[in-house]
Amino acid sequence: MTAKGAEIVCVGTEMLLGEIVNTNATYLAKALAELGIPHYYQTVVGDNRQRIHGVLALATSRSQVVLFTGGVGPTPDDLTTEAIAEFFGVPLVEHPELWPDIEASFARRGRLAPASNRKQTFLPAGAAVLPNPVGTAPGMVWEPQPGLLILTFPGVPTEMQAMWTATAVPELTQRGLTGDRLHSRILHYWGISESALAEKVQPFFELSDPTVAPYASKGQVRLRLTTRGQTPEAAAAVLTPIESQILALTGEYCFGQDDDTLVRVVARRLQARQETLAVAESCTGGGLGQALTAESGSSAYFVGGVIAYSNEAKVRLLGVNPETLTAHGAVSGPVAAEMAVGARARLGSNWAIAITGIAGPGGATPEKPVGTVWIGIAGADGVQTHLETLGDRRGRDWVRQTSVAAALDRLRRRLD
Amino acid sequence: MTAKGAEIVCVGTEMLLGEIVNTNATYLAKALAELGIPHYYQTVVGDNRQRIHGVLALATSRSQVVLFTGGVGPTPDDLTTEAIAEFFGVPLVEHPELWPDIEASFARRGRLAPASNRKQTFLPAGAAVLPNPVGTAPGMVWEPQPGLLILTFPGVPTEMQAMWTATAVPELTQRGLTGDRLHSRILHYWGISESALAEKVQPFFELSDPTVAPYASKGQVRLRLTTRGQTPEAAAAVLTPIESQILALTGEYCFGQDDDTLVRVVARRLQARQETLAVAESCTGGGLGQALTAESGSSAYFVGGVIAYSNEAKVRLLGVNPETLTAHGAVSGPVAAEMAVGARARLGSNWAIAITGIAGPGGATPEKPVGTVWIGIAGADGVQTHLETLGDRRGRDWVRQTSVAAALDRLRRRLD
Repeated sequence: MTAKGAEIVCVGTEMLLGEIVNTNATYLAKALAELGIPHYYQTVVGDNRQRIHGVLALATSRSQVVLFTGGVGPTPDDLTTEAIAEFFGVPLVEHPELWPDIEASFARRGRLAPASNRKQTFLPAGAAVLPNPVGTAPGMVWEPQPGLLILTFPGVPTEMQAMWTATAVPELTQRGLTGDRLHSRILHYWGISESALAEKVQPFFELSDPTVAPYASKGQVRLRLTTRGQTPEAAAAVLTPIESQILALTGEYCFGQDDDTLVRVVARRLQARQETLAVAESCTGGGLGQALTAESGSSAYFVGGVIAYSNEAKVRLLGVNPETLTAHGAVSGPVAAEMAVGARARLGSNWAIAITGIAGPGGATPEKPVGTVWIGIAGADGVQTHLETLGDRRGRDWVRQTSVAAALDRLRRRLD
Repeated sequence: MTAKGAEIVCVGTEMLLGEIVNTNATYLAKALAELGIPHYYQTVVGDNRQRIHGVLALATSRSQVVLFTGGVGPTPDDLTTEAIAEFFGVPLVEHPELWPDIEASFARRGRLAPASNRKQTFLPAGAAVLPNPVGTAPGMVWEPQPGLLILTFPGVPTEMQAMWTATAVPELTQRGLTGDRLHSRILHYWGISESALAEKVQPFFELSDPTVAPYASKGQVRLRLTTRGQTPEAAAAVLTPIESQILALTGEYCFGQDDDTLVRVVARRLQARQETLAVAESCTGGGLGQALTAESGSSAYFVGGVIAYSNEAKVRLLGVNPETLTAHGAVSGPVAAEMAVGARARLGSNWAIAITGIAGPGGATPEKPVGTVWIGIAGADGVQTHLETLGDRRGRDWVRQTSVAAALDRLRRRLD
């Protein structure tokens, strides 16, 4: 028999119907790996007493920690808490101290807490409350028998994740259930394919400590260096030398590390230069502005922009010359240039990014297939335009997201 | 004991490390539901013989169909096929007829098939090949004991899905394992909490046909009505009367059905009225425009807008009166009203939506806490403003997403 570890049990008929993707299991699996807690099984079961009991019988026989997500809400089909109490033959007891929090949470949204939410204040006798810092549904932390710890979380990912970080991790650490932490360093790349990057760093994939592995998503490629160690310092001593060797071979494409994103790197450089940015968006419809304002404090460098979806808006709000539109079409270098110059002038920023393209599936022409995107970058030293040909195979969302990232990378290089 | 159904077993250590989301389980669950094959359990297990045997012992005791994904490739850690054969005490036998296909598949990519891929031609004695129309890894279909059917698929989603449609569905249908198809109707709500909605429709949760269940995500709440029937007509006869009763109690909060979203409902109403929409965004930074342009064809009703993140942009591009900003602050009803009126005038649209708020975590004041959002809706009949108090506990993204949805719902009501 292998060492007992943690297992994840996700309760929700909607997962058995394929209505939602089980991202909670992915999040918790990653979190367990980072804490050095072994994890061998994930189970999905419906909102059904009998089957939850069956899953508990198995989980309690093979695991020392069982993490439940889902089924702790106020509705009749939320059975997780009751089913766990029943399985261990323990009554539910009320925690009236929870009610004011629930009422306050509704009050903040100008609503009265429905009586049905009272249900959420009942936990098995002996179980402690696992506080929910962001929602009304608390979880429980309970050791129903020696060597077995049960934690429950709501199924709503934002609530589950907030509870995991704020309340579950300290609980597991304090109980000595965590092991050597997983330490990773991530290198972020733009403008190079996963296979081209893999060729450059092939020998590093053979290493056992740290391990080096590539990941690709939405046009971005990452290298992850991973080791296990008690302290960040010990891990850094393993990771840093290999990172330096890899950067010596691939640095030109690497835009950041770890939590860096193209937005954060651009923001950092603009703030260091005390410069501001404006946007002019057509096919992305506001997605670039949304990305640039994803974090608090973006007003330090982002002033705003224009969503010039129609040609008329390009003329009215950005001063694009109607003749340029007629001569070259809305998706063209000259229009991207005039959009960027117009946004920079009208918003009084140091820099402006313009994006105009064909996100598809409609709107393509023989000369301009889906995925044709023109980017304009205007600054004090003039305007530059760039053509991105992103193709039609990955769909409209992908073209729009990739256009945003490509535009940010173009500005990043200008700000070097 | 409930009726035996199908269960899904996904094999792959990468899922236990949280490196990939298990979309295969979601795809197969939806496919089983649509075929009317009951499905009660999903399990994820690592590439480990002993644990795969443990999962098989359980699955074979409670299910009549077991679908495996993953671990059928050529590498040493691909153990699924061997582990299944071992569990039933049956030898692996070679299917040499598979080799030419595998060679051809590599040849198409200009490569020679590695000897390691020979492994993929071995299946348990008595198992039949489940052909893979798009990749090199075939699966198996095997009835190792009466009343138990095992199917295996590769873990690569595109290959698994192609095999499911092309080879597994016919197999399951021919064996008479499919049942009445599942038919659902989904009602979408805005402006009511899951628990408040549940209280209004409580009695319907007791129904067995159709079943009625609530779901909540990102401030939106859904009711799902589900029944089984041979034909859509038979299903509609069960669903429609209950839907009407539910709508009689909750109609004011229900904005759509099935694939409807707030954006689609607003788009449909604008197009029916042949009217256009513009936006003026502050705290959402472009998120409303991005949502409105998420689907091709949005240029029929969406003209564009202004991302007025700074006060100066609100004045310059929307004509907001600086005195209004000084007197009431950027996050106020009067500013939301002037932003909406300004966007409508400058973009020449029939309608304009303005959003100005404090998404947080920074920027709050005692009078205006995080989550304070003002929405302005301007139309030919004037401008209306609405205050949303969304709170600070669910974070910036949630406040921004909820502001976008709340603003769309306000316009939806105006377009009634």
